[in-house]
Amino acid sequence: MTDNTILIKDTLILNPSDFKEIKGSLLIKNDKIAEIDTDIDESNVDKVIDGKGKILLPGFVNTHTHLSMTLFRGLADDLSLDSWLNDNIWPMEANLTSEYCYIGALLGAIELIKSGTTTFSDMYFYMEDVAKAVEESGIRAVLSYGMIDFGDDEKREHEIKENIALFEKCNGMADGRIKVFFGPHSPYTASKDLLEDVRWLANEYNTGIHIHVSETQKEINDSLEAHDLRPFEYLDSIGFLGPDVVAAHSVWLSHNEIEIIKRNNVKISHNPCSNMKLASGIAPIQDLITNDICVGIGTDGASSNNNLDLIEELRTASLLQKVNLLNPKALTSNEALAMGTIRGAEVLGLEQEIGSIEVGKKADLILIDTNNANMVPDSSATSSNIIYSANGYNVDTTICNGKILMENKKLTTLDEEEIYKKARKAIEELKEARK
Amino acid sequence: MTDNTILIKDTLILNPSDFKEIKGSLLIKNDKIAEIDTDIDESNVDKVIDGKGKILLPGFVNTHTHLSMTLFRGLADDLSLDSWLNDNIWPMEANLTSEYCYIGALLGAIELIKSGTTTFSDMYFYMEDVAKAVEESGIRAVLSYGMIDFGDDEKREHEIKENIALFEKCNGMADGRIKVFFGPHSPYTASKDLLEDVRWLANEYNTGIHIHVSETQKEINDSLEAHDLRPFEYLDSIGFLGPDVVAAHSVWLSHNEIEIIKRNNVKISHNPCSNMKLASGIAPIQDLITNDICVGIGTDGASSNNNLDLIEELRTASLLQKVNLLNPKALTSNEALAMGTIRGAEVLGLEQEIGSIEVGKKADLILIDTNNANMVPDSSATSSNIIYSANGYNVDTTICNGKILMENKKLTTLDEEEIYKKARKAIEELKEARK
Ligand SMILES: [Zn+2]
Ligand SMILES: [Zn+2]
Repeated sequence: MTDNTILIKDTLILNPSDFKEIKGSLLIKNDKIAEIDTDIDESNVDKVIDGKGKILLPGFVNTHTHLSMTLFRGLADDLSLDSWLNDNIWPMEANLTSEYCYIGALLGAIELIKSGTTTFSDMYFYMEDVAKAVEESGIRAVLSYGMIDFGDDEKREHEIKENIALFEKCNGMADGRIKVFFGPHSPYTASKDLLEDVRWLANEYNTGIHIHVSETQKEINDSLEAHDLRPFEYLDSIGFLGPDVVAAHSVWLSHNEIEIIKRNNVKISHNPCSNMKLASGIAPIQDLITNDICVGIGTDGASSNNNLDLIEELRTASLLQKVNLLNPKALTSNEALAMGTIRGAEVLGLEQEIGSIEVGKKADLILIDTNNANMVPDSSATSSNIIYSANGYNVDTTICNGKILMENKKLTTLDEEEIYKKARKAIEELKEARK
Repeated sequence: MTDNTILIKDTLILNPSDFKEIKGSLLIKNDKIAEIDTDIDESNVDKVIDGKGKILLPGFVNTHTHLSMTLFRGLADDLSLDSWLNDNIWPMEANLTSEYCYIGALLGAIELIKSGTTTFSDMYFYMEDVAKAVEESGIRAVLSYGMIDFGDDEKREHEIKENIALFEKCNGMADGRIKVFFGPHSPYTASKDLLEDVRWLANEYNTGIHIHVSETQKEINDSLEAHDLRPFEYLDSIGFLGPDVVAAHSVWLSHNEIEIIKRNNVKISHNPCSNMKLASGIAPIQDLITNDICVGIGTDGASSNNNLDLIEELRTASLLQKVNLLNPKALTSNEALAMGTIRGAEVLGLEQEIGSIEVGKKADLILIDTNNANMVPDSSATSSNIIYSANGYNVDTTICNGKILMENKKLTTLDEEEIYKKARKAIEELKEARK
């Protein structure tokens, strides 16, 4: 078999692991970055992409989402979390099927690819259908089944079986683009038994854990009432925490909990837009970073965001820290860009494979076209122009695992119109079924 | 002379003055909206625009910006306000010329038109050059000269002369698309004499006043030190305030100041992204709205934002109020959309002409294309889909004063490539001059 090569030439390469900028070219061989140089010979290359006027970045890493929920975009807004969940999201979820989750995941995959995300970490139901969408779309994913037992033994057994089945069926699938984690939903929906089982399973299967922790003040109060401990204190007390745990949200943290997170090297997924929209609170991200805790970014589901644009998410993260701390130097554009790429890779334990631009790493790459009104002039620091001025629409090329998923804003693996049509039909049917 | 007619047919018309949605068509005759109906005969119409799958809205109103500063996008970020101004913005402004301001304004106009803004209110120097850019681009504007005297009599006279000259030369220009306001920069850069002169002049010329008030905590402290009064108390004490005053920022307000704003019917321009990025603070917008105070939205200059996307600004405004008040019902998508359109028109005293979709009003209209990954499915409330899911790139058609400025994302009045080139050259020269 001969190698498949793609040359991205004459571009501005920004590597978020050191923020050095290289004006030059990058050669992809099969699924990997093979060469980075000021000039690379383009004879014998299968495909040449002109990178002039563009910025080459690692693909973005979205560390917390529920992709199939893209179907529920805008289903219910401007509501309390209670009413949003009880009166709107849960009644709709009751009628979800394998097919609907597949369509929702495809719809979400389109949005991810178009806005430059090449890896996402997902927790939901019907995850084998999400895996199918990942395989077809060409994107990279960490998938976990959202386990909820509310202390019911039978339910617990069922949930664990589901997640194990997902692992055995899908881990390593799609040319290795899919990894499977365990996904206990949260410390308040998963029992102590379930959490302890998950801890054991994660060790046994040598994989990670994806969980929601400390999203709302109510969760803290409930945890104090139930355990006399705050959520991270409780998780620590049962030996659940470790460097393979990704805690989404982590909004309400005491000083002691930050110590616990640091000591256990727990990874954090920050979801500012969802936290703002649902009025959950402002996570102490600058504090976490100062404490050398690894923080990635996530959009949460489109139903509480309401989009999957990671540049917008990073911008919001940065602006929110600045205003909350009344410190304009908080969460700089470099820190934000790292959060969306290399830190995200670390959060998912994938930092050897993705998240930066290095020879030997997977070719998960995007091009941002700066020749657009919102990015001219580009006299600023490159990371500033991306984080503060751009949005997902400025991405014009997306490559994952060495395969072009979008070029000049045209998708190569998915049929947009067809999927939009199916998604519209699906949500209409789901709304009808609820009546 | 025969009438020039444009029919926008088969679209979803969302009027932010009552939030009624009409599936139908809209006829433009010359500069005005002539007819709105479920079906309008298209024979004899000069131009037909297919509005299927799109949302028809009034053009957005940006109530506070410094358009020429678009040249300074990303010039300096992640800095304290002091260092940002003293070490970066002011040294660059020292070398500004008429030509640079003209190019900066054209560049900004491109971004405004592309993201659906049809009216902006500007305060800066070389405003006749901004007027020229407004005339050529086809957009609508309220222009004011930024007057600063720091108590110097000679300077004051000069500044007042400049603003009067601007009024006499440009008010009513460009088929009436340009109005001129008086623009005392702020209560701390303009002396009491200047503010009193401006009050008199605004009455005399029967026009409005555009001023920065209460942007930072430091400003409050300085005002208390200088006058023993907070900024709005001081302005009230000298009889400056009135319904024709537009106060940008208004971040740090006491209960008494909110009373003063309400009693004087002062208009507020909210600039959340700039306030976040410069870490100025969070304005009590929900409070102001609850007090029936008229609040519009503004981007401030691109140098502290760093873009002019009003949808992004409105989204940020809404999310920020929700999280700050820990109330997910704060600043709903309807309230945000009104803030960006009809309230903005009221802020500028233009509510008889623009800001909503009514027969007889100016045809300042935009079409948002919902057939895009970030807006599918569009099963939600239309305002939610715009405010929470969309961004400026979803705008595909922009019409101002009955003239098409952008159709299917192609600009009709301005040459993008040419202006980008000039803008890049201008900032390079300005950086060189500073060395
Ligand atoms: Zn979640
Ligand atoms: Zn300003």
